[in-house]
Amino acid sequence: MNGKGRLFGIGVGPGDPELLTLKAVRLLRAAPVVAWFAKSGKAGHARRIADGYLAPDAGELRFTYPYTTEIPKRSDVYREAMAAFYDDAANRIAAALDGGRDVALLCEGDPLFYGSFMYVNDRLAARYDTEIVPGVTAMAACWSRAGLPMTRGDDCLSVLAGTLDEDTLAGRLQSADAAVVMKVGRHLPKIRRALDRAGLTGRAIYVENGSTPDERIMRLSDMPIDEAPYFSLVLVPTGRAAS
Amino acid sequence: MNGKGRLFGIGVGPGDPELLTLKAVRLLRAAPVVAWFAKSGKAGHARRIADGYLAPDAGELRFTYPYTTEIPKRSDVYREAMAAFYDDAANRIAAALDGGRDVALLCEGDPLFYGSFMYVNDRLAARYDTEIVPGVTAMAACWSRAGLPMTRGDDCLSVLAGTLDEDTLAGRLQSADAAVVMKVGRHLPKIRRALDRAGLTGRAIYVENGSTPDERIMRLSDMPIDEAPYFSLVLVPTGRAAS
Repeated sequence: MNGKGRLFGIGVGPGDPELLTLKAVRLLRAAPVVAWFAKSGKAGHARRIADGYLAPDAGELRFTYPYTTEIPKRSDVYREAMAAFYDDAANRIAAALDGGRDVALLCEGDPLFYGSFMYVNDRLAARYDTEIVPGVTAMAACWSRAGLPMTRGDDCLSVLAGTLDEDTLAGRLQSADAAVVMKVGRHLPKIRRALDRAGLTGRAIYVENGSTPDERIMRLSDMPIDEAPYFSLVLVPTGRAAS
Repeated sequence: MNGKGRLFGIGVGPGDPELLTLKAVRLLRAAPVVAWFAKSGKAGHARRIADGYLAPDAGELRFTYPYTTEIPKRSDVYREAMAAFYDDAANRIAAALDGGRDVALLCEGDPLFYGSFMYVNDRLAARYDTEIVPGVTAMAACWSRAGLPMTRGDDCLSVLAGTLDEDTLAGRLQSADAAVVMKVGRHLPKIRRALDRAGLTGRAIYVENGSTPDERIMRLSDMPIDEAPYFSLVLVPTGRAAS
């Protein structure tokens, strides 16, 4: 496209650096500019996963989230701050692309599945040649490590955000054949109540930091504390018997 | 484990051989025995994806499905034939493991997400040391290729089997924020009706053979015929606006 760089959204997988795809590694090694999102004061999970695969002379663009949990996600202040933040990230990436340099934006798990990449893609995909490399999701890594057959036959899988209110969560869990609850963190007590109401506590497995050296896997009912780290989720495998 | 081989369930991803993970490739190259499922008369999709990564002297175990669509999946005849088929597959794998050889069972997409691997795992995981390597799912490859932001914020994703009856499909689609309909094939007319009833036809994208040279992506309403190939699915991305 007339001398402009290409934008790559690269899924770097759930945490284990060996769970990158060959394609992700090939594109990262060749990328003149690498970009990523991180929380304030943190190295950035995606950046850490990709560490061994970047070109030594790659330029780096770091985007530090303005907030994490300080203000309510449904407030106008939050929404406006995040929109301005993504505008700025997109502008800085666009400047590199306009200069003819390809940019690889690192995405934990898969770029289009709850990823910040989407907000950059919204702003740039119409103007720049864009390619998205899918990644292994955190949920797939967690159910593999736990050895849980998740869905069989015509089972439906419901992927739910733990940030939903308790009634919505309980209702969706009641109608699920199998479920994954993402974004657990401080929502764990509410998620436990919703699972109880849906009669699913006995099938719920808690996984923390799946596929990393800090991984912990246990029945949710054995999880002793009520606040989980950010990289945790709850799996409810199919209730359908083996055949 | 006392001289027995290890069982590996290896997700080989959606079709593009570059979408295997580094870990999958490492384990495949080292595997003395490789096993896979295939339809009668076909080379086997998983086997074809993994073709470039197998050790030249690897032993091969092929398991040919006794049926595809010849008899109803809910019949006792089908269930019994499939149980006997998986018993035989598990027994042949167990014989290799008992002989001290590791076996890598190839799985399209991810092993525990609608995969035949689960039925072998059901039969062998308690007796043999088993490791499961997650893979990029077909749905992630398809939404990446289509460039569709699937889920934002606290959206739920509903993964549905196209084999469900029309009322069930329509009901589940009505309550979905975003959805994937797998196993499309000859169920396409019914899936179209269910999407219509849920008011989602305008958002539905059809993807066939995602990530392979035969890939086709179009609005479902532009799909001219009523029978889709096996490797096709319908994506309904979030209706939530960009922010």
